[in-house]
Amino acid sequence: MAGSTFGTLFRITTWGESHGPALGVVVDGCPAGIPLSEEDINVYMERRRPNGGNMSTARNEADRIEILSGVFEGRTTGTPISMMLRNTDQRSHDYSNIKDAYRPGHADFGYDSKYGMRDYRGGGRSSARETAARVAGGAVAMKLLSMLGISVTAELSAVGDISASEMEKCEDLVSSVRNEQDSIGSTVTCKVTGMPAGIGQPVFDKLDADLAKAIFSIGAVKGLDIGAGHSAAVMRGSENNDPFRVRDGKVVTTTNNAGGILGGLSNGSDIDLTVYFKPTPSIARPQQTVNKDHEEIDLEIRGRHDPVIGRRAAVVVECMTALVLVDALLINMSSRADKIVDFYSCL
Amino acid sequence: MAGSTFGTLFRITTWGESHGPALGVVVDGCPAGIPLSEEDINVYMERRRPNGGNMSTARNEADRIEILSGVFEGRTTGTPISMMLRNTDQRSHDYSNIKDAYRPGHADFGYDSKYGMRDYRGGGRSSARETAARVAGGAVAMKLLSMLGISVTAELSAVGDISASEMEKCEDLVSSVRNEQDSIGSTVTCKVTGMPAGIGQPVFDKLDADLAKAIFSIGAVKGLDIGAGHSAAVMRGSENNDPFRVRDGKVVTTTNNAGGILGGLSNGSDIDLTVYFKPTPSIARPQQTVNKDHEEIDLEIRGRHDPVIGRRAAVVVECMTALVLVDALLINMSSRADKIVDFYSCL
Amino acid sequence: MAGSTFGTLFRITTWGESHGPALGVVVDGCPAGIPLSEEDINVYMERRRPNGGNMSTARNEADRIEILSGVFEGRTTGTPISMMLRNTDQRSHDYSNIKDAYRPGHADFGYDSKYGMRDYRGGGRSSARETAARVAGGAVAMKLLSMLGISVTAELSAVGDISASEMEKCEDLVSSVRNEQDSIGSTVTCKVTGMPAGIGQPVFDKLDADLAKAIFSIGAVKGLDIGAGHSAAVMRGSENNDPFRVRDGKVVTTTNNAGGILGGLSNGSDIDLTVYFKPTPSIARPQQTVNKDHEEIDLEIRGRHDPVIGRRAAVVVECMTALVLVDALLINMSSRADKIVDFYSCL
Amino acid sequence: MAGSTFGTLFRITTWGESHGPALGVVVDGCPAGIPLSEEDINVYMERRRPNGGNMSTARNEADRIEILSGVFEGRTTGTPISMMLRNTDQRSHDYSNIKDAYRPGHADFGYDSKYGMRDYRGGGRSSARETAARVAGGAVAMKLLSMLGISVTAELSAVGDISASEMEKCEDLVSSVRNEQDSIGSTVTCKVTGMPAGIGQPVFDKLDADLAKAIFSIGAVKGLDIGAGHSAAVMRGSENNDPFRVRDGKVVTTTNNAGGILGGLSNGSDIDLTVYFKPTPSIARPQQTVNKDHEEIDLEIRGRHDPVIGRRAAVVVECMTALVLVDALLINMSSRADKIVDFYSCL
Repeated sequence: MAGSTFGTLFRITTWGESHGPALGVVVDGCPAGIPLSEEDINVYMERRRPNGGNMSTARNEADRIEILSGVFEGRTTGTPISMMLRNTDQRSHDYSNIKDAYRPGHADFGYDSKYGMRDYRGGGRSSARETAARVAGGAVAMKLLSMLGISVTAELSAVGDISASEMEKCEDLVSSVRNEQDSIGSTVTCKVTGMPAGIGQPVFDKLDADLAKAIFSIGAVKGLDIGAGHSAAVMRGSENNDPFRVRDGKVVTTTNNAGGILGGLSNGSDIDLTVYFKPTPSIARPQQTVNKDHEEIDLEIRGRHDPVIGRRAAVVVECMTALVLVDALLINMSSRADKIVDFYSCL
Repeated sequence: MAGSTFGTLFRITTWGESHGPALGVVVDGCPAGIPLSEEDINVYMERRRPNGGNMSTARNEADRIEILSGVFEGRTTGTPISMMLRNTDQRSHDYSNIKDAYRPGHADFGYDSKYGMRDYRGGGRSSARETAARVAGGAVAMKLLSMLGISVTAELSAVGDISASEMEKCEDLVSSVRNEQDSIGSTVTCKVTGMPAGIGQPVFDKLDADLAKAIFSIGAVKGLDIGAGHSAAVMRGSENNDPFRVRDGKVVTTTNNAGGILGGLSNGSDIDLTVYFKPTPSIARPQQTVNKDHEEIDLEIRGRHDPVIGRRAAVVVECMTALVLVDALLINMSSRADKIVDFYSCL
Repeated sequence: MAGSTFGTLFRITTWGESHGPALGVVVDGCPAGIPLSEEDINVYMERRRPNGGNMSTARNEADRIEILSGVFEGRTTGTPISMMLRNTDQRSHDYSNIKDAYRPGHADFGYDSKYGMRDYRGGGRSSARETAARVAGGAVAMKLLSMLGISVTAELSAVGDISASEMEKCEDLVSSVRNEQDSIGSTVTCKVTGMPAGIGQPVFDKLDADLAKAIFSIGAVKGLDIGAGHSAAVMRGSENNDPFRVRDGKVVTTTNNAGGILGGLSNGSDIDLTVYFKPTPSIARPQQTVNKDHEEIDLEIRGRHDPVIGRRAAVVVECMTALVLVDALLINMSSRADKIVDFYSCL
Repeated sequence: MAGSTFGTLFRITTWGESHGPALGVVVDGCPAGIPLSEEDINVYMERRRPNGGNMSTARNEADRIEILSGVFEGRTTGTPISMMLRNTDQRSHDYSNIKDAYRPGHADFGYDSKYGMRDYRGGGRSSARETAARVAGGAVAMKLLSMLGISVTAELSAVGDISASEMEKCEDLVSSVRNEQDSIGSTVTCKVTGMPAGIGQPVFDKLDADLAKAIFSIGAVKGLDIGAGHSAAVMRGSENNDPFRVRDGKVVTTTNNAGGILGGLSNGSDIDLTVYFKPTPSIARPQQTVNKDHEEIDLEIRGRHDPVIGRRAAVVVECMTALVLVDALLINMSSRADKIVDFYSCL
């Protein structure tokens, strides 16, 4: 099946390979009337770019989005918003040695098993570059969320076991890992504020279930906690339950082990996610692997690779979260008959 | 929206409240020709039942499934399989005191915020009893998996911080927690063997993304690891990458930090999930909360409640996993043009 | 795939065979707060029943619906509404002679080709009895439409080439057809009033496209006109275009060749459908056909069959139309950013 | 909602406005290994082009497709195929006078009602130009069908009430209509040969239901017949039923009133569709209408418009049909457990 489309009412479809001519996204179901410019998108694209610093790849990606449809006189029209970015700095020769090899930690073997072939240039469709299209789509979702007073903020919280707040230690760790031709895992946290209560669907389309799908659809994610997350598994109920209280006439919880979601519905508290990324699988040191002919070989991966995935991925976490929230908010509008009657009696 | 349907080609729709007349599931898209009896289903239903032991609720649920459609002369026909179980031991009077109160750790406040009302009897639709319908649906998926040589096994692996292998210590912990009118978190692991490589879809419908949605759609799940999971976030790439080797002519990995999934596709290794459950939110000791009129109150929850969710939930994890795998296997059949041509030239 | 689910936000899933123990429907995504009783449903079920008159089957179907979930204290709760009706008057022995034969005009050969087997009792899943479940689901949609001031009315408009207004002539035609052990085609018209403008989606999910799918999903439908329909193919543009005018401050059209839909969106005029049903394929006179072993045989179909499909099918047309409209109305709520902001600022 | 995506396993998403910078399509779920070049697509694009003759618009559309992803070394890879065409000959000044007017027979009023705004340039998203993207997507589906020995052919069969076989009379009619600053309706027939039996899904996703949705999603379609279509409504059952016989060891029907589909499943006979198009709504003669401020006005539509929709639309009918068939064929692969076991035991 497809698999390149995400969402129900607010829906993105991404396309493109790492070293093809271009990649892009179609945002369908975006409500009409949202002010939107290429600049709004490029702010997010910029955050995804390597900064040339220690922690990320040296590839020079001038990822500036072109909006091809769905915006007229500076506002969204309700029709699909197509956005594209050209692949300019491709250097596909870097990847020739992996043409027949199955890189450890990568999807190469899976692709060949599934499709009988693959676009091996830079990982093709399985490249992290695919996430650029998600970010462009998510940036549109963020615009709508901000109109509703909802903010989503994700950031790198740890490199290996070093907290991101200890910035110098992190830099040192990354440097030493890079010198060892190795890579290191990382952790990203994401916080949503301003979310109304009651958003999400009971049973299968729980808000946390949809968030989990969104987060695990980002390559290299191996674990997710919502609220207390895996720590909740060692807690007592009396400790884990968040008491409801009333503050300023509003129902709130005094703790937030639930991470803002109970029974699949938001409860009005902040939504807290912790996302665990594996270390970058492309490392410079030689690795044992197998090739297409099922021969055991030693592989050296050349090219430019982030030793830490989490920093550039934080904005991807943010954008995937935003996409889930917008979709859930739109779906939620049809929950109550009285509100539907109100809506249509205003026409 | 709906939200009570799960899956694309192999799809279940569940319905029913804890204290309504019945609950059930419709399995649509089940291939024709699978031998299926009510007994096949009841084996799974039995595993979900409280056993009267320390770890689970005393409610006497004779959850025997009635198959109402989709099976003819002992085999599935390809048409929807409707299965129902009556709610017999309802005792709804137990729940009268929670009619207007928002139980901490429960979805009550979310339901009222969303729908302006709720069926408060025993948690209504948000009751763990809803999972009985999933298990019935998942049992059908398990039949098909077994025809393909694929097994799925989930089990309680820890109660709080005590490994389930130390059975006596677990029993003691549960007893003490119960005596304290409290509850305790738990961990369930799930292993899939026999999975072919290449199953799942790249990008949004990654196999791990769909598993994550399935698992987080189970009430009380707060964390999920796939393979090394959150531990991968502190590992080096050289340590985390699983080397490919050839054994008996087959491509295998010598370690399995990936948990059998790379880039969203199965790689032929075992799929390993670790699922973290919060402690049962319904505890007997008095709790602070708020009622419908936004008054702060003290609440005592009566009734029968498992102090540990993981033991009865293991079979639910197993069944949700099976549903994802079957759907992905069916979808995967259309991946290659040559195989489609083969398929239709055999007709 | 599945195929037994219809709709996106307001969604029904039907199940059941003609001669299995029961059949039913799950309505998921129904907004909370709609007053609903079994009686509301049975009014529609009654209209689908044979009336014992000339035009319909003698099967005595006491099709009284049981609501099993989703309604609490007389109102919908927002959770799935499961409705079931038992098959009581089954007489499956009537159908033994068609076990191995492929009835002309029926799906038998298609089912065997697809599934390698079929439930041959009374047509199994392909029986017109399946539509009882749709009617139950559609009756819920009708309740919501009536709260919005929208009415849907379908009726038999012709039997063969005799207008239904000439009731006596119709009865005579049906009598003579029945005496000849034959059957006759029919036409049903459906009118929607009170529909606001702008409902539906551009491009693939046009309101007319979704109506067409809904209508052609009813067995025995072979043609559909929207507005002027096939007559539009011989008209001039100057004749076919409906001029817009203003009446009582409202934009209206002075003719309605478009049948209330332009470019896939409602335009505020009545929606007019004309649905063409083939004659009942089950006729008593002997027919040439083929059996499972691909032998040519003569077949006599016994049992009770309507000689005219349109009369009992009118309520099915009405219900399928209602399902499409409700879904489109709910989806439409997310079309404009300003209305979304209004909606959530009221919370 | 979205509404710009069509299909389940084989799925297209289109985007673009008539006078925006470009329009395009993303084909997702296309099986790997299909030989595909831009030339394969352009053959179909060419058929959709105005030929400069009497019957079509004078707009010079050099609609040459650019493939941006999903094809590697001349074959599809299984990942999304993005195709784009630039809008070059836009002349948007032609449309300035319709900025505030609601053109009769067009979606303008519906768009404004729905979105509170619209891209008025050349009809924006509701322009027939949108179908160029469908044709590009359908061309890919046609490639797969041809590998399976299935052909789909649509052609103009009548202009007004003149059969397309009387070519001279048709030309005369079109000339006179054009001279009268008017337009004329048309009919397109579509035939599918080589379709195996058993394709489609029972109940809601019947093959005819999905075809009906596909066909009515094409702008200006007002009626559809399958097989005998609306004529079946005046036939007797004994006349309409197609007898099954055996020819060369194959089950066939000796007539084809069913148009190749019974009970929603193909029966191995040719699939026959008749599609009725209304006359082009954009006519040069002055028309009564209403503007945005709800004032009654007279409108003259300038610009280049086909007086007959059917000729250029035939290839659109063909492509939409192909998309439905491919999707149904892929979905059908999961119908039988024994074939699934065969499929996976070959891996």
